[in-house]
Amino acid sequence: MISVNLLGAGNVATHLYKAFNNAAGVIVNTWYNRSLEPLQPFKNAVEITNDLSQLEAADVTILAVTDDAIQEISHLLPHSNGLVVHTSGSLSLHNLNKEHRRGVFYPLQTFSKAVDINFKDVPVCIEMEHKTDVKILEDLAAAIGSKSYKVNSEQRGALHLAAVFVNNFTNQLYRVGHEITESKSVDFNILKPLIKETAHKIDNLSPYLAQTGPAKRNDKKTIKKQLKALDSDLHKAIYELMTKSIQHTHGKKL
Amino acid sequence: MISVNLLGAGNVATHLYKAFNNAAGVIVNTWYNRSLEPLQPFKNAVEITNDLSQLEAADVTILAVTDDAIQEISHLLPHSNGLVVHTSGSLSLHNLNKEHRRGVFYPLQTFSKAVDINFKDVPVCIEMEHKTDVKILEDLAAAIGSKSYKVNSEQRGALHLAAVFVNNFTNQLYRVGHEITESKSVDFNILKPLIKETAHKIDNLSPYLAQTGPAKRNDKKTIKKQLKALDSDLHKAIYELMTKSIQHTHGKKL
Repeated sequence: MISVNLLGAGNVATHLYKAFNNAAGVIVNTWYNRSLEPLQPFKNAVEITNDLSQLEAADVTILAVTDDAIQEISHLLPHSNGLVVHTSGSLSLHNLNKEHRRGVFYPLQTFSKAVDINFKDVPVCIEMEHKTDVKILEDLAAAIGSKSYKVNSEQRGALHLAAVFVNNFTNQLYRVGHEITESKSVDFNILKPLIKETAHKIDNLSPYLAQTGPAKRNDKKTIKKQLKALDSDLHKAIYELMTKSIQHTHGKKL
Repeated sequence: MISVNLLGAGNVATHLYKAFNNAAGVIVNTWYNRSLEPLQPFKNAVEITNDLSQLEAADVTILAVTDDAIQEISHLLPHSNGLVVHTSGSLSLHNLNKEHRRGVFYPLQTFSKAVDINFKDVPVCIEMEHKTDVKILEDLAAAIGSKSYKVNSEQRGALHLAAVFVNNFTNQLYRVGHEITESKSVDFNILKPLIKETAHKIDNLSPYLAQTGPAKRNDKKTIKKQLKALDSDLHKAIYELMTKSIQHTHGKKL
C-alpha cells in the first residue's frame, strides 16, 4: 500500500485524487488546499485540510500546485522523511526544498474539469534524486494504469514545450478551421473525422512521412488561391508561416 | 445496382475502387488511367483501360484525377447520358463539360497509399447540377458506408481550406514536436496520447472552450521562458504567431 498526501485542487490534483481513490494499493492520507471549498465534495472520503501542519506522514507527498507555489510550499511541509514530488512539466527537481527526498511525477496530458480521463492514456514522466525512489514512483503510476517514463529535467522541459505545439497550437488550428467553416455556414463537424485521422495516422508513420497537401507538393497555384480566399490577416499569416515551415522540412522553396 | 466508371489511379481513386469493390450494390464497369501500370494489380477483378473511348456507359463516371486534368478529361468522355462527377475539394462543378449531367463527390479525408481507410470515417460532400441526381450520389456514398453532406461549391472550398489548417498544418506542428523531442533524445511516442486527446476533446467541447495553456492564461513568464528555449527561428516564429492567434481569439494582448 502506497500512502499519498495530495496538495492542490486544480485539474491535475482533482483527476489524480479520483484515480488514486479508485486504485487498489494507494491510499490518500490527506488532501490539502489553501482554500477548503473545492475539496468539500470529497470530505467524506478523505481527510481534507487547509493547514499544512496537519499533513500526516505519507510515502509520497505530491505538490500538484501552480509552478509559482511549488518552492514555497515545499519549504513549509512538516515532514522531511518522505518522498516529495511536484507535477510540473517545466520546473526542475531542484525547485523543491533539498531537505526532502525529491522527485517529479509529471502526467503529460491535457486535463479539463468537464472531461473524465483514463490514466492509461496518461504517460507519467518520473524523475528522482535517489535511484532507490524509482520503484515507488513506477508503482504509483502503474497503480492508476499509467505508463511511466524516466525522463530528466531537460528532457521533461522539451516534452512540455513540444506539448504546447501539439496541443495548444493544434487546438488553435482547429479553432481557425471552425472560423473558416462558420463564415460559410458549413458544419464544422464534417472536419472531425479528418482531425482524428490526422492524429491517428502518426501511429504508423512519422509526421515527416505523413505530410500531404499543397505546401508539401509545392503546388503554387493552390497556395496562391487559398491565401487569396482567406479573409483574416492572422489566418493568412498562419497559412504563410506553416507553408514555409513545411517547405523548410521537405526541402522546397516557397 | 449503381454502375460506376472510375478515372485516375491516385490515392483517392485507389481507395474508392477498393471500397466500391467491397460494396454491395455498386459495380465498377471500367477503371481508366493514362498509364495502365498502377491498375495492373486489379486487372483480374475489373476492366482496365488507358483509352477513354473504351469506357462503357455507366450511371456515374467519377473523375478522381488531379485538378488540372479534370476539365480536359471531362471533354474527352465518350458518353453524355450519365452523371459525371469530380472528387476535388477546390474546383467548381462548372469545371466539368456542360454536355454532361454534372456533380461533385468529394471525400473529405486524408488518404495514404500505405494506410487502409474505412469509409465510415470519410464524410462525402456532394453537389449536383440537377436536383434529381441527389439520390444516386447519396446512395453511392451510403453503399461504401460514408455519411454524405449536401455542400455548395463555396462551402466546399471553405472546407477544403479549413482542412489544410486542421490536417497539413496540424501535422506540421506534430513534426515540430518531433524535432523538439528528438533534439533532447526523448521519445516522441510519449506525446501521442496527448495528440489523440487533443483531437478527441473537441467531440464534446468547441475548440474555443477546449483551449488551455500559457497563451490562453496570458502567462507571460512561461511564454518568455519557452520562446528562449526554442533553438530554431522558424519554431520561435510559429510559437509567437500561434500565441498571438490564441490571444486574439481569447481577447488578450501579448
